Amino acid sequence: MIFIGEKINGTRKIIQEAIINRDAEFIKKTALDQANAGADYLDVNAGTDPSREKEDMLWLIEMVQSVTEAPICIDSSTPEVIQAAIHVVKATPLINSINGDPKRLERFLPFIKEKNCNVIALALDESQSGMPTTVEERMMVLARIFMATRAAEIPDDKVFIDPLIMAVATDQKAGLIAFESIRTIREAYPEAHITGGLSNISFGLPNRALVNRTFLTLAVEAGMDSAVVNPENVALIESLKATELLLGRDRFCRKYTTAAKIDFSKK
Amino acid sequence: MIFIGEKINGTRKIIQEAIINRDAEFIKKTALDQANAGADYLDVNAGTDPSREKEDMLWLIEMVQSVTEAPICIDSSTPEVIQAAIHVVKATPLINSINGDPKRLERFLPFIKEKNCNVIALALDESQSGMPTTVEERMMVLARIFMATRAAEIPDDKVFIDPLIMAVATDQKAGLIAFESIRTIREAYPEAHITGGLSNISFGLPNRALVNRTFLTLAVEAGMDSAVVNPENVALIESLKATELLLGRDRFCRKYTTAAKIDFSKK
Repeated sequence: MIFIGEKINGTRKIIQEAIINRDAEFIKKTALDQANAGADYLDVNAGTDPSREKEDMLWLIEMVQSVTEAPICIDSSTPEVIQAAIHVVKATPLINSINGDPKRLERFLPFIKEKNCNVIALALDESQSGMPTTVEERMMVLARIFMATRAAEIPDDKVFIDPLIMAVATDQKAGLIAFESIRTIREAYPEAHITGGLSNISFGLPNRALVNRTFLTLAVEAGMDSAVVNPENVALIESLKATELLLGRDRFCRKYTTAAKIDFSKK
Repeated sequence: MIFIGEKINGTRKIIQEAIINRDAEFIKKTALDQANAGADYLDVNAGTDPSREKEDMLWLIEMVQSVTEAPICIDSSTPEVIQAAIHVVKATPLINSINGDPKRLERFLPFIKEKNCNVIALALDESQSGMPTTVEERMMVLARIFMATRAAEIPDDKVFIDPLIMAVATDQKAGLIAFESIRTIREAYPEAHITGGLSNISFGLPNRALVNRTFLTLAVEAGMDSAVVNPENVALIESLKATELLLGRDRFCRKYTTAAKIDFSKK
């Protein structure tokens, strides 16, 4: 399971303040804690005003890279910011994100290919419509994205598909649609990764952590192999370890029993 | 989800002592607590010496029925004990259990049919071999059992199939076999119920409750619709509520949000 640590995101008030105040220690600690907890990538999103986003992104990356070698997930909607970030990252990054918008694909794919980056592909086309409602709609957008990535000679295993998880509180079928999307994607693109934020599913409900961890179990069974999460969330790690054990992916139950010994406090 | 409350079982030391000492209050409390927590059936197993099992079983049933109307799951391997119990139960009981042994089927099915009982059918044939190892072995035994129940004109929906869950600590594939068995059974016998004890899966592992609750989530997704459990186990109820919510079986999220309000302390 590939974890993308979600905490360094300028849309979170506490991070926004640290960016504006150039609170290096806070950013470094947040990065190191996530890396120590087992994050495979650290998402970095400046989330600041376009006029300063590039400068903030580069500062954040510098802070993160000063304490950990964990690769960075460059999270921006601006191609210039991403291009600038690609030049300073030390390990092969994950780009967050592309989608079905042809203009965005045309602009992003050349440098993703050139730098051999991994990339998150959202199963939506912001140039045509809002959030997809059906599995079919997601698959149609993904077909266009993979036509473009394959044409650009980007291997499928560099692509992290985000099937777009919606809130079950507003659509009772949101869970079922997510699991069916994941199964269908796993079948259609066996080499690709499948990722996503878990927390959307529980929006508006009490005890969101419970819904998120239960969702993770069912999503992993369906074929999800990555998630954008807080890797320090012990309940989530617990569920993941037990799920992998029950799905026969834990030889001699070693990963489970080792994690249980340290109270599941590390991925 | 049909819960069979597991606590009144004479193989548990605390219950055995209560039976021998005729501690009526303890048995009544155990029954009432499980019924209040939402048990659909209360398993009653005297677990005592054959010479006194019938007498103990009848006493236990009398105690249980003095405090709750919850139907009883008559748990014995002795046909005489089951027949005697059937005469005193007030609500339609669940018989625990038959299996592929032809002699047992011949002996049990007539009075199960006559009294319109529900029955647990274990996917094993104790007359031929021990525990089944494969999905196919389970399906072959079940084919023979259903040939017999259908010949006796017992409707499929009166049968609770127990696919026999084994320990993942001794066979890494035990979870996968369980889920595949459940899926295959659900497909082959859509009207039947699928039940089983959860706790076998976690035998020999640390934090068994975590493994059991994660197993329940995956088993329910695969098609299990009943379980032999302690219905007062809040963590298990939590997982079940979140699972049903995510599988689109909770209109307007009402069951989940109601349960969350009372801290999931009731099924």
